[in-house]
Amino acid sequence: MNRSDTSEIIRVAHAMADAARIAILPHFRAAGLTAENKLDAGFDPVTVADRAAEQAMRDILAEVRPQDAILGEEFGNKAGTSGLTWVLDPIDGTRGFISGTPTWGVLIALSDETGPIFGIVDQPYVQERFVGGFGLATVNGPTGEHALRTRATQNLEDAILFTTFPEIGTEAERRGFEAVEQQVRLTRYGMDCYAYALIAAGQVDLVIEAGLNAYDIQAPIAVIEAAGGVVTDWQGGPVHEGGQVLAAANPELHAKALEKLQKG
Amino acid sequence: MNRSDTSEIIRVAHAMADAARIAILPHFRAAGLTAENKLDAGFDPVTVADRAAEQAMRDILAEVRPQDAILGEEFGNKAGTSGLTWVLDPIDGTRGFISGTPTWGVLIALSDETGPIFGIVDQPYVQERFVGGFGLATVNGPTGEHALRTRATQNLEDAILFTTFPEIGTEAERRGFEAVEQQVRLTRYGMDCYAYALIAAGQVDLVIEAGLNAYDIQAPIAVIEAAGGVVTDWQGGPVHEGGQVLAAANPELHAKALEKLQKG
Repeated sequence: MNRSDTSEIIRVAHAMADAARIAILPHFRAAGLTAENKLDAGFDPVTVADRAAEQAMRDILAEVRPQDAILGEEFGNKAGTSGLTWVLDPIDGTRGFISGTPTWGVLIALSDETGPIFGIVDQPYVQERFVGGFGLATVNGPTGEHALRTRATQNLEDAILFTTFPEIGTEAERRGFEAVEQQVRLTRYGMDCYAYALIAAGQVDLVIEAGLNAYDIQAPIAVIEAAGGVVTDWQGGPVHEGGQVLAAANPELHAKALEKLQKG
Repeated sequence: MNRSDTSEIIRVAHAMADAARIAILPHFRAAGLTAENKLDAGFDPVTVADRAAEQAMRDILAEVRPQDAILGEEFGNKAGTSGLTWVLDPIDGTRGFISGTPTWGVLIALSDETGPIFGIVDQPYVQERFVGGFGLATVNGPTGEHALRTRATQNLEDAILFTTFPEIGTEAERRGFEAVEQQVRLTRYGMDCYAYALIAAGQVDLVIEAGLNAYDIQAPIAVIEAAGGVVTDWQGGPVHEGGQVLAAANPELHAKALEKLQKG
């Protein structure tokens, strides 16, 4: 892919993230004001926002990149001819969204036959955008633009671990998770895609999750890999199709966490 | 207290929150860049930020409100003559802070002999400030200023519950918590003071915690009560001195949660 191709893709991806912000924000925290009436009427603000955002992103692609395939959480698959697929999760972290917390995000990835090659993790309320791929690894947020670089943490004893556990996972998965958790310095819960962004930003070291879909993980993979991290399944293989995820700040820490996870 | 007194107090509290933001933000997420070196040198960025922020707030009080007492997390008690006490937690949620998440906050409360009468919960990174007391109940953030009003949720089955459990609490406390958790619609973890702000903002319904200090809870009490909510200990009594906290969106829901908590 030449430089003018990648420049266009980056521009389109930002335009999609901008459109998703505009579609979602009017619905964020609006729920609380009249939640009970809305539930009575069968109206679900997060679903409305989710669909509006994915439609806004698809409209942009239909206009400027009709040759690309699309896989989206809300509206499924659209075939393409370019060999490239946009993988979209308009609101990752709907439980965070309906609770008013700013840890949900818009996930946009572009994949080729090898997996994700570019990704955006956007937080509309905080106005913070994590970007990775095509030589970029940056966050642009309330304190300006900064380079993303993962940490050099070498030992589990020094690591900060994030997860959505104890909420998600089978008993066997939980045992694997706990084998790692017992070794780390600090465990934190419930940040959804924001936890992956924090690995890329060099703030935390590990994320362990299970039961993910392709659209949950492709953008985080692109952003974390661009910042120096490693994202695999619990066997150490590719995870861009979803499943059990182990994301780590660097290869050494990844290997140590993987060993514990498999013994768990 | 007359209107000119309360106006001055509100002005001073905002100035303190502004000063705390300026003191803390240079240290937020700076940790990740050189965390290991800093730890080697015995340098702890969160402690530096914590102390700098409390000192900045105390400097303002020394200048314009020397008659008031101060209780701060970092520098303890200072006596006063006015019958009013400023209760300060420069960084509530240090584990969130060192993980780079935007759910820590600056807590500023003003108390008289009855407990907190005014409070601010500020999030410097998001630039979001929750204020309650003296007739105010507002949030000013990325989408502008909005009134705070708690939800009317009447039943535990419809409630969203926040807590720092499973991390904090004795076994007996955990049983009480679980008795409530089993009834609610959704449980979320680990937001520190931000969870209380979300009750005030009408986004969530309950927060249950244990082991809190006075400076952890006084600002949340002022903001939640100003927005229509109820905050007590697990016996239904005042909790501004700290301990086991039950915060609820309204009196009816509070009564139902309290009953479960005590049976747990």
